[in-house]
Amino acid sequence: MAKLPRESCYELQDSCGVFGCIAAEGVDLKEFGLANNIFLGLLGIQHRGQESAGIVTGDGTSIYQHKGMGLVSNIFKEEDIKSLQGYMGIGHNRYSTMGASKLVNCQPFVVDTAQNWIAVAHNGELVNAKSLRKKVLASNVGLSTKSDSELITQLLSISPPCGEPEGANWPSRIKRLMNETQCAYALVILTKDGIFGVRDPYGNRPLCVGKILRSSDNGKECAGWLLSSESCSFPSIGAEKLYDVEPGEIVQLTRKGVSRLEIVQPLRLSDPTAFCIFEYVYFARADTVFEGQMVYNVRQECGRQLADEAPVEAEIVSTVPDSATPAAIGYAERSGIPYVEVLTRNRYVGRTFIQPSTRLRKLGVARKFGPLTANFLNKRIILIDDSIVRGNTMAPIIKVLREAGAAEVHIRVASPPLKHPCYMGINIPTKEELIANVMSPDELAKYLGADSLVYLSVDGLQSAVRKGIQMTTSKPPGHCTACLTGKYPVELEW
Amino acid sequence: MAKLPRESCYELQDSCGVFGCIAAEGVDLKEFGLANNIFLGLLGIQHRGQESAGIVTGDGTSIYQHKGMGLVSNIFKEEDIKSLQGYMGIGHNRYSTMGASKLVNCQPFVVDTAQNWIAVAHNGELVNAKSLRKKVLASNVGLSTKSDSELITQLLSISPPCGEPEGANWPSRIKRLMNETQCAYALVILTKDGIFGVRDPYGNRPLCVGKILRSSDNGKECAGWLLSSESCSFPSIGAEKLYDVEPGEIVQLTRKGVSRLEIVQPLRLSDPTAFCIFEYVYFARADTVFEGQMVYNVRQECGRQLADEAPVEAEIVSTVPDSATPAAIGYAERSGIPYVEVLTRNRYVGRTFIQPSTRLRKLGVARKFGPLTANFLNKRIILIDDSIVRGNTMAPIIKVLREAGAAEVHIRVASPPLKHPCYMGINIPTKEELIANVMSPDELAKYLGADSLVYLSVDGLQSAVRKGIQMTTSKPPGHCTACLTGKYPVELEW
Amino acid sequence: MAKLPRESCYELQDSCGVFGCIAAEGVDLKEFGLANNIFLGLLGIQHRGQESAGIVTGDGTSIYQHKGMGLVSNIFKEEDIKSLQGYMGIGHNRYSTMGASKLVNCQPFVVDTAQNWIAVAHNGELVNAKSLRKKVLASNVGLSTKSDSELITQLLSISPPCGEPEGANWPSRIKRLMNETQCAYALVILTKDGIFGVRDPYGNRPLCVGKILRSSDNGKECAGWLLSSESCSFPSIGAEKLYDVEPGEIVQLTRKGVSRLEIVQPLRLSDPTAFCIFEYVYFARADTVFEGQMVYNVRQECGRQLADEAPVEAEIVSTVPDSATPAAIGYAERSGIPYVEVLTRNRYVGRTFIQPSTRLRKLGVARKFGPLTANFLNKRIILIDDSIVRGNTMAPIIKVLREAGAAEVHIRVASPPLKHPCYMGINIPTKEELIANVMSPDELAKYLGADSLVYLSVDGLQSAVRKGIQMTTSKPPGHCTACLTGKYPVELEW
Amino acid sequence: MAKLPRESCYELQDSCGVFGCIAAEGVDLKEFGLANNIFLGLLGIQHRGQESAGIVTGDGTSIYQHKGMGLVSNIFKEEDIKSLQGYMGIGHNRYSTMGASKLVNCQPFVVDTAQNWIAVAHNGELVNAKSLRKKVLASNVGLSTKSDSELITQLLSISPPCGEPEGANWPSRIKRLMNETQCAYALVILTKDGIFGVRDPYGNRPLCVGKILRSSDNGKECAGWLLSSESCSFPSIGAEKLYDVEPGEIVQLTRKGVSRLEIVQPLRLSDPTAFCIFEYVYFARADTVFEGQMVYNVRQECGRQLADEAPVEAEIVSTVPDSATPAAIGYAERSGIPYVEVLTRNRYVGRTFIQPSTRLRKLGVARKFGPLTANFLNKRIILIDDSIVRGNTMAPIIKVLREAGAAEVHIRVASPPLKHPCYMGINIPTKEELIANVMSPDELAKYLGADSLVYLSVDGLQSAVRKGIQMTTSKPPGHCTACLTGKYPVELEW
Repeated sequence: MAKLPRESCYELQDSCGVFGCIAAEGVDLKEFGLANNIFLGLLGIQHRGQESAGIVTGDGTSIYQHKGMGLVSNIFKEEDIKSLQGYMGIGHNRYSTMGASKLVNCQPFVVDTAQNWIAVAHNGELVNAKSLRKKVLASNVGLSTKSDSELITQLLSISPPCGEPEGANWPSRIKRLMNETQCAYALVILTKDGIFGVRDPYGNRPLCVGKILRSSDNGKECAGWLLSSESCSFPSIGAEKLYDVEPGEIVQLTRKGVSRLEIVQPLRLSDPTAFCIFEYVYFARADTVFEGQMVYNVRQECGRQLADEAPVEAEIVSTVPDSATPAAIGYAERSGIPYVEVLTRNRYVGRTFIQPSTRLRKLGVARKFGPLTANFLNKRIILIDDSIVRGNTMAPIIKVLREAGAAEVHIRVASPPLKHPCYMGINIPTKEELIANVMSPDELAKYLGADSLVYLSVDGLQSAVRKGIQMTTSKPPGHCTACLTGKYPVELEW
Repeated sequence: MAKLPRESCYELQDSCGVFGCIAAEGVDLKEFGLANNIFLGLLGIQHRGQESAGIVTGDGTSIYQHKGMGLVSNIFKEEDIKSLQGYMGIGHNRYSTMGASKLVNCQPFVVDTAQNWIAVAHNGELVNAKSLRKKVLASNVGLSTKSDSELITQLLSISPPCGEPEGANWPSRIKRLMNETQCAYALVILTKDGIFGVRDPYGNRPLCVGKILRSSDNGKECAGWLLSSESCSFPSIGAEKLYDVEPGEIVQLTRKGVSRLEIVQPLRLSDPTAFCIFEYVYFARADTVFEGQMVYNVRQECGRQLADEAPVEAEIVSTVPDSATPAAIGYAERSGIPYVEVLTRNRYVGRTFIQPSTRLRKLGVARKFGPLTANFLNKRIILIDDSIVRGNTMAPIIKVLREAGAAEVHIRVASPPLKHPCYMGINIPTKEELIANVMSPDELAKYLGADSLVYLSVDGLQSAVRKGIQMTTSKPPGHCTACLTGKYPVELEW
Repeated sequence: MAKLPRESCYELQDSCGVFGCIAAEGVDLKEFGLANNIFLGLLGIQHRGQESAGIVTGDGTSIYQHKGMGLVSNIFKEEDIKSLQGYMGIGHNRYSTMGASKLVNCQPFVVDTAQNWIAVAHNGELVNAKSLRKKVLASNVGLSTKSDSELITQLLSISPPCGEPEGANWPSRIKRLMNETQCAYALVILTKDGIFGVRDPYGNRPLCVGKILRSSDNGKECAGWLLSSESCSFPSIGAEKLYDVEPGEIVQLTRKGVSRLEIVQPLRLSDPTAFCIFEYVYFARADTVFEGQMVYNVRQECGRQLADEAPVEAEIVSTVPDSATPAAIGYAERSGIPYVEVLTRNRYVGRTFIQPSTRLRKLGVARKFGPLTANFLNKRIILIDDSIVRGNTMAPIIKVLREAGAAEVHIRVASPPLKHPCYMGINIPTKEELIANVMSPDELAKYLGADSLVYLSVDGLQSAVRKGIQMTTSKPPGHCTACLTGKYPVELEW
Repeated sequence: MAKLPRESCYELQDSCGVFGCIAAEGVDLKEFGLANNIFLGLLGIQHRGQESAGIVTGDGTSIYQHKGMGLVSNIFKEEDIKSLQGYMGIGHNRYSTMGASKLVNCQPFVVDTAQNWIAVAHNGELVNAKSLRKKVLASNVGLSTKSDSELITQLLSISPPCGEPEGANWPSRIKRLMNETQCAYALVILTKDGIFGVRDPYGNRPLCVGKILRSSDNGKECAGWLLSSESCSFPSIGAEKLYDVEPGEIVQLTRKGVSRLEIVQPLRLSDPTAFCIFEYVYFARADTVFEGQMVYNVRQECGRQLADEAPVEAEIVSTVPDSATPAAIGYAERSGIPYVEVLTRNRYVGRTFIQPSTRLRKLGVARKFGPLTANFLNKRIILIDDSIVRGNTMAPIIKVLREAGAAEVHIRVASPPLKHPCYMGINIPTKEELIANVMSPDELAKYLGADSLVYLSVDGLQSAVRKGIQMTTSKPPGHCTACLTGKYPVELEW
């Protein structure tokens, strides 16, 4: 197949964020603030994607949309929010990858079909995208981008070749799609029959249902329903989480409520659920609840586990702010060594492309972090980080601490070594770029200038994740650890 | 059918400009400057569309593209030109219509198909777009825009349902498309087999073939071939016009040269050619040659004709600069009354959206034109304009001339009254907005403050257009006068 | 003196445009549209400067301002116009020079002084700027830019060291300034006592007074007064020229009318008036009236003169559009050879910085002009241009005409050869860059590929300029021809 | 005095940041990276001002500058850094105030004077600005802005009227300035004789000196010297703090080193030092060291003090992230109640101007903070905040915590109630806007929905600040508490 033009090159859909909102029947739409809710919902899951965002709303007849490059708060102005009318809508945050940042790739993807228009927001990556693409092209449909989302939308549009007429039976079309591609996606689909939420049969990408509240004379009433990648987006819009969409489940949001339509099983029934374990480790916001447990507490438990697995004598435990803080607090708690802050983070050091001078390159100083020297002078520090991927941010941090007078710096990583690429939606570098494939922990410690370095074990991570799960699905929970172990939940297509 | 979202609302493709360029075999591509040529070509037909522009280039394997909103000279930077590699490419200028100015509508439209990628640039409007759209949707293809160009591209992609496999036989696919939709388009299509140029069987929209030159030791050699809406784009890239693409003709540009593949006839063979007469009156640049004659000279002849049809006693003949100048010179020549400039045009008065003060509104002064008072003080002026559409720019001009001391102002319009909408690609206002449907010439003269006003007759225009034609096509020339007469060349679909 | 930072480097104030407007007492300010008038006034003199523009308005107590880079129509939005309140104001257009385009240099220049705030708009260049600057610095004032306008403003602010208290006696301060610097400037100064208009004692830069009209029941009434570099800005705001400010004159506009306060003489009383002759040749808009004559007619007369001085056998006379057109029409008239258009001008070819390909460089084609081939095929052309400065735009034009089939091309330049730099406000290149210092007319003809080339004589230009003058000043008219003859009206400071 | 135009309205210089850098003799300037250092230095003090920034560099002969609106990382591109040549330079970050955000107010302020150019960067506000302004205007200097920085620059430029010639004796001029205005400023002044650092005699605004290091064969060597508002900017450029500039001190940085020239005393010698206590409470970055103690530790001590002053029974102590965290940790430490995080902060919720829907307004939810519910469900929370100004951000936070299941919420504020405006450079709202002037702590607790609310006492704050001071100045340390107590260090001018 020919190389495609740059702007439609193969895009990982990475860890994007999807969102949906519908107003209950009889609700005053002006008071409800449909687009406002979706806007705030996207703000709440902005950490899942900062490249572009879009909102599509509708009323079963017309649809309205606004998309743009950049952050949610820059893309939407008051007049855009006002123009997004109707009683239901969906939104999408897209992850920033180098190179393919073009407006044409913004989601939700909207198309007119023989069954009226639909809009699709997608988080994940189709492991059999190549063969699906061939199939769609073979049925004489031209594809104007290389995104999985266009593929999904056209697959939903195509009728079964020799079957009875399906028409606008969206659940049937979605089920057919799920049988053609099983991994990995969370989808939010806007149709004239309401909003559909879909999670792939392996449950790889997260999706949950929420209930939106309004104050009334009788206390709080239900004003509508939501779909979101993460529950952390609910409180800021006055909503509550109801439940996780189950692996393989199709739910439908209408103005009357939420219907749990069906659960599509994996083709191999014996396959276990494979929810991405890195959502706990890195992607999700700390206040999100998955499988009945708060992400913060899983991270804290990882820290405790790490204290058990890799103790070391020191005066203080600390964090690389902000993401490693729960694990550091957990480590401190379990080890009995006090938790003390050793670094401030300069939030104004963004993506600067200015080359450092030779002097600064030689000194290898950290731009982003300032040492809280008086807190650690002449002390031994256990420094917790959440994960190490390429390993090129830690060395300057250690240098800063040492130069400011740290006696020792011991790195403890609250997740196992990352060794394998992900083909299910996470943009993990190639094997060669993953430092854990290049150096042993001891070599890495030396390379980074640390006194020691230990990763959390895979078992340790798994037990930390399992410990607090409160069963919310019909199938036992299970987690994808492919990037750590190389064991992929489905066969890969090359 | 549901109302569609604003950004994909039904777009007239108006009088856009299309362009194509291919390098001859063996030419040094760096010296040749493929993207540079297309860039200059688009600059040369920029008058046909100022809303957005795009260039797509390729080498049979990869394709490269850059598009943007605004003027060609702002969209393309040196690095964009450099990134547009390969030996062939196409370009498009889009006409500015209010409301639907979105990047998603920029052309050329690129899609991946079972037969490799193609890119399409389109000038015109499909009169049977609605039924074609239904047909495409019914074949299970989702359409992401409402543009005719996406429709054309998907129609090219769809194989005949029960026919033998067609594969990448582009001429066959193009011919099939031409049988499904006959009016109105000029297409430039980039495929891995070269560039195809297509003109609809009625020849409604213009398209011509050119030859690109390079200096060598043996004088000038052919370095490549071109397609363009207008020949005026050739001299600035060192090229010459070869011939007009004939109505219904498909030409193919490869690195070996130009092949005239086939001429597709109208379905009703008796139908005459219907080349848009308004290209002569208004759209084309004066130095463009259609049907063997220079547009400037046709406009000059219209002026002569008008002098015959509508003489009036006066001291000077003048023009509303710049477009009416050839007609004014023709009128002066035929009438023997001297041609004198009476207005300067302020080129810095663009689209200003600042409201005039009440005083200025009452005075009704012209912002764009300055009176060359000493040239016409106490004189009777015959003022030539090329056309009158809504009739709201002429009154302030007449006022300025009168206040500066013109003795009389007689308006002569070098085209007949515009009375009917166009459905073939020109964005003519509704019937109610066309001033010629509201007022007789005498009423209009009074309304505008003129001493008299006469339009050119339809016969006069037609004879002016026919006079200098040098037969270049196999079928006798013929012109669409639908906007003047209401006689449309094909049946309209409502 | 130390080299200064780039953004405050010595700026030629070039041929900028200045404007002032005041409303008559009792006029309804909302109807009047003060800022609207200044905005339209600046649009009318936009040809004098396209780099930046600004408007400052006031009511004797508060002042309001808005400035920006670029064209007037882009800088001012509806809300800016609304924010510019008061009953009087001034505006400025700045000429585009490479390098020093910074907002800090935008005019009008506003300062707070012991005598309340003032704002100054300036067209020209002070020939003794260096010594004035030293003087100001020596009086302990810091200068934050290197512009003449800040210098003028601070000079107006400084009181005479040993004199009696001057206070806010602006005419006295302006007179003192004029005695310190005599050349070259036209100033428009906003103070709480009204607007002052000043022309230097040599009358080098133009400035005129206008009267603004409103419709009332009794016909048209005077609604206010104007100052402008050129009268061409008046008609589009419903105004009429009253008279030119005389060389050395100070006029004051108040809400009661215009007072002609005083005429300051040159220090050497014998010195003649030296109005820049290039305003007629090149800078001014054709519909402007200087010294009682329309610029268009002077240019036409230059053409007639040129026909007398430099006849040649040919079939047609033509123009390099647009500026040379009046001269071409004059030449055609006098010579009896018909005026025929041979070139269209592509107005979309702006400042493109895209490098041509090697092929295009070799071919040397003209980007900006398209040949109207049928108008001149096999004919001898006399091509009129208004002036030749560096001589690098003419060669490709001649090439285009020749390749399209011109039999001969004879260049006639409607002004004498430019040989000397200007130190009075016009940004003329160095001596070495002026082609007339490098080649004789015959050498230049050869270099450009023309069959012949003749300039207008200095005497011819002067007689063309003098022919139609209607005496409007107390002193006989006189023109600065320094750039043609090297005779500067004042001694230069090095 | 007349109202001035909006863009030069009276500007608080607020808590801006100033910076200076000079390379040691013999240092390789390319390796050194002068502008790079200043860029990183400004990044390090970006929290002090985000409206605009500028850098001016020089070499004693030429100066170079670049300024812009917005954040440091957006204003400076690689090419700007490259263009800022020389061996010494200064930089400035400006605080964002509504309304007067104009490029003309960007610092450093550069002027040419009789003693060569100088550039001034200023943090603070001159309490006698009005009378100084009158004085400057009276000496016939026009002022183009209303900023204190222009005032300072012109005051430095003016020579003593009847004194002996001072010339470029900058220390003498600076001393004279300090005698004319005593409060409040930290200045960094670039002259051809090096960089001067100045702190007002009351020491109200901070300024310190640093030493810049380079690696060499002999370990680390001194490569240059720095001035900065805060020492937190040093580590990221490989530098170390040397000492605080003393109140009233003038230091001079040359290529040979730092000279401590002189200490100017307050006019009333009995006046104590008055370093702004709010630098400790709020403005400074936690890793900055003032008076020998780290700001983080002072805040922590405030927390401890608060635990002593205002204990309450509860299960957890927590923080409003991020600024109150050290105080919360201190409170937890002293009280023995565990420190637990209860809120995540959404860093993507910036300044959004989108109105919430009626429903959301009624619900009063917090946009910026997400509850870490499982950490505090059914628990009593002591929530520490650093300060309460207008009191409008706390109510939604408390609501979020309560709705998520907090048993009780007790607010403890780690600073005393803010009751008085600041006239020394901090943009504190008017008395009426300060909530502490409107409600008692108990009323405020009720209004915010808290179970109790207690502020730290003034004595408590002062003792926390004094506790860790390590004497670094010749005069005993002292702190301005005017905003808390109404006792201003100097007489105010009205």
